[in-house]
Amino acid sequence: MKEISKLMSYRESIRVVDATLRDGGLVNDFFFDDDFVKSLYLTNIKSGVDYMEFGYRGDKEMFDPEKFGKWKFCDDDDIRAIVGDNDSDLKIAIMADVGRCNYKQDIRPKSESPVDLIRVATYINQIPTAVDMIEHAKNNGYEVSCNIMAISSAQEGDVRAALDILGQTAVDVIYIVDSFGALYPEQLQRVAALYMEYGEKYNKKIGIHAHNNQQLAFANTIEAVGDGVDWLDATYSAMGRGAGNCAMELLLGFLKNPKYKVFPVIKFIDEHMNKLRESGVKWGYDLQYLMTGLLNQHPRTAIEFTKKDRKDYAEFYKEIVALD
Amino acid sequence: MKEISKLMSYRESIRVVDATLRDGGLVNDFFFDDDFVKSLYLTNIKSGVDYMEFGYRGDKEMFDPEKFGKWKFCDDDDIRAIVGDNDSDLKIAIMADVGRCNYKQDIRPKSESPVDLIRVATYINQIPTAVDMIEHAKNNGYEVSCNIMAISSAQEGDVRAALDILGQTAVDVIYIVDSFGALYPEQLQRVAALYMEYGEKYNKKIGIHAHNNQQLAFANTIEAVGDGVDWLDATYSAMGRGAGNCAMELLLGFLKNPKYKVFPVIKFIDEHMNKLRESGVKWGYDLQYLMTGLLNQHPRTAIEFTKKDRKDYAEFYKEIVALD
Repeated sequence: MKEISKLMSYRESIRVVDATLRDGGLVNDFFFDDDFVKSLYLTNIKSGVDYMEFGYRGDKEMFDPEKFGKWKFCDDDDIRAIVGDNDSDLKIAIMADVGRCNYKQDIRPKSESPVDLIRVATYINQIPTAVDMIEHAKNNGYEVSCNIMAISSAQEGDVRAALDILGQTAVDVIYIVDSFGALYPEQLQRVAALYMEYGEKYNKKIGIHAHNNQQLAFANTIEAVGDGVDWLDATYSAMGRGAGNCAMELLLGFLKNPKYKVFPVIKFIDEHMNKLRESGVKWGYDLQYLMTGLLNQHPRTAIEFTKKDRKDYAEFYKEIVALD
Repeated sequence: MKEISKLMSYRESIRVVDATLRDGGLVNDFFFDDDFVKSLYLTNIKSGVDYMEFGYRGDKEMFDPEKFGKWKFCDDDDIRAIVGDNDSDLKIAIMADVGRCNYKQDIRPKSESPVDLIRVATYINQIPTAVDMIEHAKNNGYEVSCNIMAISSAQEGDVRAALDILGQTAVDVIYIVDSFGALYPEQLQRVAALYMEYGEKYNKKIGIHAHNNQQLAFANTIEAVGDGVDWLDATYSAMGRGAGNCAMELLLGFLKNPKYKVFPVIKFIDEHMNKLRESGVKWGYDLQYLMTGLLNQHPRTAIEFTKKDRKDYAEFYKEIVALD
């Protein structure tokens, strides 16, 4: 049982990362208008959020800039157009995917960039490249985190090996990522204990990025808080790929540090997020995501089901059980 | 941390109670058609659900039978029209509210009724009447459970006193009820420990009935399972008052006893629940319920907000904070 004294208190070391533009961008191809982004930036400052992730630094040789909004690429100049000199306590983050980012060319020295934190995202079999990206970003002066994706389908031995390698790099934060929304809180607790073991050994912070396939993104995130995990990803209205993420409005309601304020988040949702939904952008918990989560499968079939506006849930279940 | 051996295994003593008609009836005034109810009954049998709650036994002097569907009253004959002699493993439950049920007249001997379980629902200040109802139902041959509602706003001393009184009655099961959807799993764990203490002392089973205001109904229910709570309420598509309940499809996906099957639940939702939503019946997680949950308030203001089709969440937050 968590200590009762800790339930009423808070840890100064908690960091909240707003991933709305980045994970949310996956459902609208990053077409957010500047008013939305600027307003989100100001809201994050007001509500005490620690980091705002603007999107990916995608490789323009690989992704056609005509086909995506600018936050797929996060040019420094585009970020600057929103944040100016970012004269605030909010730090700026971007994500760089292993294999989808031309990092040696596109990640320039921190002195030339408004970005504070580079978030390297990797599958477990790509760790050596992730290490190279981490060192490159570190050498260029950034804070660096690393997301090991899809761990619910990885072997514990492989996860240990990855943590041991990452522990020896200059990375600042290592993230638990439940890409499939497959983990229950009681499992998350064990995963967190494993990550914390390496975090303590190598003096790294641990983070959590959850998905809401089984309506557990928030529950898993606060389970992780109780287990000592300090870096917490959330998105406004839980906007994110498939079933979405941990909702910022739930997380800031839970956290007890007085610097976090939930009202600006509610105001932003009122003014912006519902409009986005009404414009036809789709995300969030639904039966098809529950099913892929339950079966510990990648949500790609459920995303396809959603895109096609299918409603034949029973038929879909038969299809994905057959894939299992 | 929960024992790892228990995560893969299951407890024979778990009981799943389908409360769709009863808690769901609160959002459509119990107007379910017979085809829906019959199909739900057959689905519960197929999916291994242990109890099906048909509705309330409301006092017809107090509630006008012209204004509500029949499951507000659950006449034995109406239940029999659906279940016949109920030649199945599924048991039949109804709820009787303290102060809203003419129990001495309307709860007749079990030998004349298809009902197996009477669920007495009470606020903490009504315990003496609840005790009288429990003894009446027991003397008439029923299994009996008792729901103490709205405990998130009760004093622990009062909850202890109530548990000590109920422990000395003939009641079979005592329920933890998070009426406001205000509890976090780490709090639920403490509440469960308290109820289990009295459950062990008086040889009573403990149950959980959760609400989804903060997307924690399922998380709190499985937290309770890990804490030894055996009786679990759930509803199809989480249908229930306000933000709804723990979703049956999530719960049966989690439980490992092979008798529980999730596919019939998905099929029922596919065929019936979405139609119900499309017909205009409204329930489920939304920002207004998050806010009342967060503030540990009764959801009545949020229900009103929903009924009026209001979308001005920020204004609503100001209103309810002023009520706090």
